[in-house]
Amino acid sequence: MPVPSLATHLTGPLLELERRFLAAQPQIEHWFRNQWSNHQAPFYGSVDLRNSGFKLAPVDMNLFPGGFNNLNPDALPLAVQAVASAVEHACPRAKSILLIPENHTRNTFYLKNIAALRHILETAGLQVRLGSLSPDINEITQLDAGDGVQLTLEPLHREGDRVTVGTDGFDPCIVLLNNDLSAGIPDILQGIKQTLLPPLHGGWAVRRKTQHFSAFDQVATEFASLLDLDPWLINPYFAGCRALDFHERHGEDELADTVSDILQRIGSKYREYEIDVAPFVIVKADAGTYGMGVMTAKSPDDVRGLNRKQRNKMSVIKEGQQVSEVIVQEGVYTFETVGEAVAEPVIYMMDRHVVGGFYRVHTGRGRDENLNAPGMHFSPMSFDGACLPDRTCGPEDSTNRLYAYGVVARLALLAGAIELKRTAPTAA
Amino acid sequence: MPVPSLATHLTGPLLELERRFLAAQPQIEHWFRNQWSNHQAPFYGSVDLRNSGFKLAPVDMNLFPGGFNNLNPDALPLAVQAVASAVEHACPRAKSILLIPENHTRNTFYLKNIAALRHILETAGLQVRLGSLSPDINEITQLDAGDGVQLTLEPLHREGDRVTVGTDGFDPCIVLLNNDLSAGIPDILQGIKQTLLPPLHGGWAVRRKTQHFSAFDQVATEFASLLDLDPWLINPYFAGCRALDFHERHGEDELADTVSDILQRIGSKYREYEIDVAPFVIVKADAGTYGMGVMTAKSPDDVRGLNRKQRNKMSVIKEGQQVSEVIVQEGVYTFETVGEAVAEPVIYMMDRHVVGGFYRVHTGRGRDENLNAPGMHFSPMSFDGACLPDRTCGPEDSTNRLYAYGVVARLALLAGAIELKRTAPTAA
Repeated sequence: MPVPSLATHLTGPLLELERRFLAAQPQIEHWFRNQWSNHQAPFYGSVDLRNSGFKLAPVDMNLFPGGFNNLNPDALPLAVQAVASAVEHACPRAKSILLIPENHTRNTFYLKNIAALRHILETAGLQVRLGSLSPDINEITQLDAGDGVQLTLEPLHREGDRVTVGTDGFDPCIVLLNNDLSAGIPDILQGIKQTLLPPLHGGWAVRRKTQHFSAFDQVATEFASLLDLDPWLINPYFAGCRALDFHERHGEDELADTVSDILQRIGSKYREYEIDVAPFVIVKADAGTYGMGVMTAKSPDDVRGLNRKQRNKMSVIKEGQQVSEVIVQEGVYTFETVGEAVAEPVIYMMDRHVVGGFYRVHTGRGRDENLNAPGMHFSPMSFDGACLPDRTCGPEDSTNRLYAYGVVARLALLAGAIELKRTAPTAA
Repeated sequence: MPVPSLATHLTGPLLELERRFLAAQPQIEHWFRNQWSNHQAPFYGSVDLRNSGFKLAPVDMNLFPGGFNNLNPDALPLAVQAVASAVEHACPRAKSILLIPENHTRNTFYLKNIAALRHILETAGLQVRLGSLSPDINEITQLDAGDGVQLTLEPLHREGDRVTVGTDGFDPCIVLLNNDLSAGIPDILQGIKQTLLPPLHGGWAVRRKTQHFSAFDQVATEFASLLDLDPWLINPYFAGCRALDFHERHGEDELADTVSDILQRIGSKYREYEIDVAPFVIVKADAGTYGMGVMTAKSPDDVRGLNRKQRNKMSVIKEGQQVSEVIVQEGVYTFETVGEAVAEPVIYMMDRHVVGGFYRVHTGRGRDENLNAPGMHFSPMSFDGACLPDRTCGPEDSTNRLYAYGVVARLALLAGAIELKRTAPTAA
């Protein structure tokens, strides 16, 4: 597979990282097996990685992955086998899955994602029906996902402590959310007795990026000690900032101080590794998604005295939610390019297994910008397989670069599992 | 993928079978999930199928599969993921595997199989070393598997209740047999406390084909009732015959009577389904393998009055073992051809998952003969994937024919699991 080139002279540390991953592959896989015997893997997840040539780190971990339509169709058997494991772990006697999509039913890209996900689940032998939370779906609705594929959305309804669709006795054991619950937890899903995946507290109504990256701190530290690595090489610095009001300009100083602190910590690491680029941070809504409410800052001044347009941009995210909490995260340059465009890898996992991935390639953005932006134009470049290593090649080989991506993505997935355990509501 | 053509007018019943499999796919996969929650899948296995156009049935189930080198290299990720499941089920904390190959170290095809199997296990992150049972391997021995691949064989030795190789503390949790123990159970493996897969009683020193097909009877009957099928469509008739002595011509009448009985039962089914071909049976050593000790009979007279050469052929199998027990199995015509040559599918599984397969294509044999014969020349035709169905195509589509193969092969694998449970020695 052609992969983007690493257009940088700063590849020394990363090659060293890839070399160590490759040499330690048996220890790494053994460590993962042990971890998964203690932690239940999420049903699925995707991880956005950034590869700066000197650092390879996750910047986002999505528990409600879209984009299954961007995976290589040849990898279908891998996803199907992973679903068999996921179902074995979640509800071995499941015959059927109720899939709850996002409400934006006019987005053909998203509909293609749902069609691709349904195809994986059906090929694994599950009966799949789509139950909608949308108030606009009051009756059975046919949607066109393109290429002759139709999706049938049915209104979700509650029956006692279960949710279902239709009146023909469809009784799913697993309810799979592909809706990130940004608008809040709907009453209809409260207290249901079916296996709900991800659980309600995985939705953005409850979830916080800072909680994820706290869990990732722990995972990265333990993993780095296994390999005798500096954990910073795979872990971005971050800090949370609360009680902000962008409109009223409350908390501006606290935010600027946090930005300053993270920039200093990055600068110190850059000096240690003799990296000659400017540190930057990404400020994003702690509960946000979809690249809304995101900005880059290279100086504390960048977050002070924002104009009205900038404040508006930062203060509202998906579903009109107000932003009062942000994460200030170390920015990781992406030094991968396809032609003139910058690229970042996105890795997809089901259960504990990498099932594919692609490069998000953005022609209108820089190396220090968020590529998952509203109105982004990206050309997915599918990976061939499961990010498996090939020890007969060197660490610079693209196969082995993908192995490193798969390892770091699985670390983020593990952090997601730990995060979900930590944030689970305790039984009353 | 090009698959062999079904050169027959008798495809009606089989298309009906494939159509039912396809329509019932969710029930089938749900049924398998339930079965696997009650039965531990073998670590690996391969199944020889025969497709007569009116019947699709397993004729052999190998617990020590060779031929991993014949699988499509693109299916590596699938095998690696299946190994992760197998290890999770067998010994989740395993770091390493001790692989015990057959003793025939001069067979380059076999060495390629071991190299391919080792590659799968290593890519799954396991440390793999090869421990030999051969009396000829007294020291570390390098063997050339071709294509620049070297295999290092080490003499197996016992340390207390464990086996290992070397003197550097290699401590495998799993001992994986790719040696079918035709010569008997070696003392060195008796009573070891490591996880030995397959277990000792899976070796041909103990195993009997009749026990496997008894278990398959049960599986096929239950599965056929799920789909409301005649189990005969997927299950060959068989009977055992014991206390034979081909040299002394003891038991000849009993054998002829058994052949006669099976031929009559087949004939009755052929009349029921209006199948206008001659019934035949295959007589093979009940504990045999490698296509030794095998003959075709279309009449009881075919097993009476054998000449010296025929008696010799039937009486000795691998490792010089004498044959006193045979299975008389309904012969299933193969009506698949590649060009002028007959072909039969072989399906490979690891844990509960289909990981690939190929067609055994034989230019020198007929439709009613065993294709797994000494001196056979076969051209493997790899399958692309995991025998997944495609419900957008009809049952005659090759993808869906492969799905049917995968289902029947997994039924035989399940029978292998039940057989191993039934024949396990009870703890003293």
